[in-house]
Amino acid sequence: MSSVKAYAAQSATSGLAPWSLERRALRADDLRIDILYCGVCHSDIHAAENDWGRTNYPIVPGHEIVGRVTAIGDAVTKHAVGDVVGIGPMCDSCRSCAACDEGVEQYCLNGMTAVYNAADRHDGSRTYGGYSTAIVVSEHFAVKMPEGLDLAAAAPLLCAGITTYSPLRHYGVTKGSRVGVVGMGGLGHMGIKLARALGAEVTLFTRSAAKVEEARRNGAHEVVVSTEPGAMEAMAGRLDFVLDTVPVAHDLNPYLDALTFDGTYILVGQLVPLDPPVDASKVVYKRRRLVGSLIGGIAETEELLGLCAEKGITCDVEVVRMQDIATAFERTKKGDVRYRFVIDMASLKEDDT
Amino acid sequence: MSSVKAYAAQSATSGLAPWSLERRALRADDLRIDILYCGVCHSDIHAAENDWGRTNYPIVPGHEIVGRVTAIGDAVTKHAVGDVVGIGPMCDSCRSCAACDEGVEQYCLNGMTAVYNAADRHDGSRTYGGYSTAIVVSEHFAVKMPEGLDLAAAAPLLCAGITTYSPLRHYGVTKGSRVGVVGMGGLGHMGIKLARALGAEVTLFTRSAAKVEEARRNGAHEVVVSTEPGAMEAMAGRLDFVLDTVPVAHDLNPYLDALTFDGTYILVGQLVPLDPPVDASKVVYKRRRLVGSLIGGIAETEELLGLCAEKGITCDVEVVRMQDIATAFERTKKGDVRYRFVIDMASLKEDDT
Repeated sequence: MSSVKAYAAQSATSGLAPWSLERRALRADDLRIDILYCGVCHSDIHAAENDWGRTNYPIVPGHEIVGRVTAIGDAVTKHAVGDVVGIGPMCDSCRSCAACDEGVEQYCLNGMTAVYNAADRHDGSRTYGGYSTAIVVSEHFAVKMPEGLDLAAAAPLLCAGITTYSPLRHYGVTKGSRVGVVGMGGLGHMGIKLARALGAEVTLFTRSAAKVEEARRNGAHEVVVSTEPGAMEAMAGRLDFVLDTVPVAHDLNPYLDALTFDGTYILVGQLVPLDPPVDASKVVYKRRRLVGSLIGGIAETEELLGLCAEKGITCDVEVVRMQDIATAFERTKKGDVRYRFVIDMASLKEDDT
Repeated sequence: MSSVKAYAAQSATSGLAPWSLERRALRADDLRIDILYCGVCHSDIHAAENDWGRTNYPIVPGHEIVGRVTAIGDAVTKHAVGDVVGIGPMCDSCRSCAACDEGVEQYCLNGMTAVYNAADRHDGSRTYGGYSTAIVVSEHFAVKMPEGLDLAAAAPLLCAGITTYSPLRHYGVTKGSRVGVVGMGGLGHMGIKLARALGAEVTLFTRSAAKVEEARRNGAHEVVVSTEPGAMEAMAGRLDFVLDTVPVAHDLNPYLDALTFDGTYILVGQLVPLDPPVDASKVVYKRRRLVGSLIGGIAETEELLGLCAEKGITCDVEVVRMQDIATAFERTKKGDVRYRFVIDMASLKEDDT
């Protein structure tokens, strides 16, 4: 056991403040990792503020973690001391069910273990996330960070990146696929970049004409301003895929119309009732598919990182100090970030308070 | 041109009554077919009564047609005079788009031509359906009826059968698949029989304990009475597919929960808003798919008929006279039919009124 610095919320209204927690002694397959950077995902805020009603306090958020291995357990073979590795939203799973066998541990039939706000499946202790100076995790759930990527900008690939990449790959986006992306926040801007990296023709849907230039900079071939008269009607039947990254309830029906026969509508941003309701005729008449997808598996994440290294893709980030997390949370809630805050964990290590 | 007897609705409130219509002279690829039987699909009623607001009167319904070829056009090669053939809801399509090329003409990107209440794509004349003594149709849209099937009981395979078979096949139902069927009307009872014929383990969901025995007779291995306390919860994660044949809006969420990771929810019965709304978390957390499917293509229909001949599968029907169509409509509306009315067209041919 060893004590490490962290930032924790003590209640739904406390905000985050310095705290210290114990990281476990290494098990045979564990790595101890000195955390360099941790991204700020909107779900960190939902969890810290108990928006989903599932939070046990104190909570240490953070699941876009990049760090350096400082110690390894006796049975570790995949990583070595000195390696730079990434850890995403999962830190464990049963490793023996159909989903784990397929390499999509996020769908573990026995329930994956989240990197924070969960119970360790071996000793029942609480898991605490990446808003801390170090973490201990099984080597299987750490991925090697490739050379050549800016590590702060690569941290959000572990959640925002893989959440969009996993369904694009699973449902077969490839060269020439026509992909529409709805929403251009942390997930959406990665969706544009990754769909383009896979060879797709990418169209961004936005409600604001002010975002057109920005969307093109992110790699969109076309931008549809959905609020312009006739703009959505003109897209009818023109896409093979829609990647919907909007985090709140909205009307899917106009975007479903943009799909051709056999088109696939991918939900990654929202976990709420689809209200206004989806019209069944929109899926029946064209054999369209409405599918969901949750983060991604370890093998998929490794594949994603390889693609990003090859193509030079990272997230657009704003690096902040741990001490400024309250401001980062507030600005994230307002959508005032292009597109992800990433905490430089040196700020916490040097903090004497 | 030749005049044939038919039953037509002249308005949304007129009901059906004797009428006569002209069938076109044969084009090179046309068959003239003497109609033996025609099934009564619930959509015939919706169309006759203009429930969807798209009906042009007069309308002659009927799209589960079995008949004998009595004449052929000069270029016909697939069928011969004397053949017994079936015609479903389509009588034409563009035959050159991606969907037609794949053999799923029902999704024709230029719009398939319905066998009634549509405009012929060559001369713009109205199409009239199977509640008549004869029909003229391109040979491509007629399928050979296999030997050994009762022709009256086989007629509904052209719509109720193929509507359930097409998605079961397309989405990969096979030996050992765990398939839940929701609803046991015309579509649902065929879904049970056909999923079973494909080797699946079939569970029927019903709200009524009185239907348990009947469901087992239709081939269900298990029956879940959804209104019994705990019954739905006990099904959580246990199915690979749900085939939802319910024709009206209802809550899909409890049935989505019955699907495992990567499970597929197939909508074939309803064309209305999914209200109460589907909860996005039910598709996201388990990578489930909510898909729709519309009737089936010609090649799929031929495959279905082969399977039905091999396994001795037909629809459970009640054969009626054309003159009794009003009663058949009323009883169909009430769900008072096990499971399909089929009109014996000899009754119309012999009618002197």
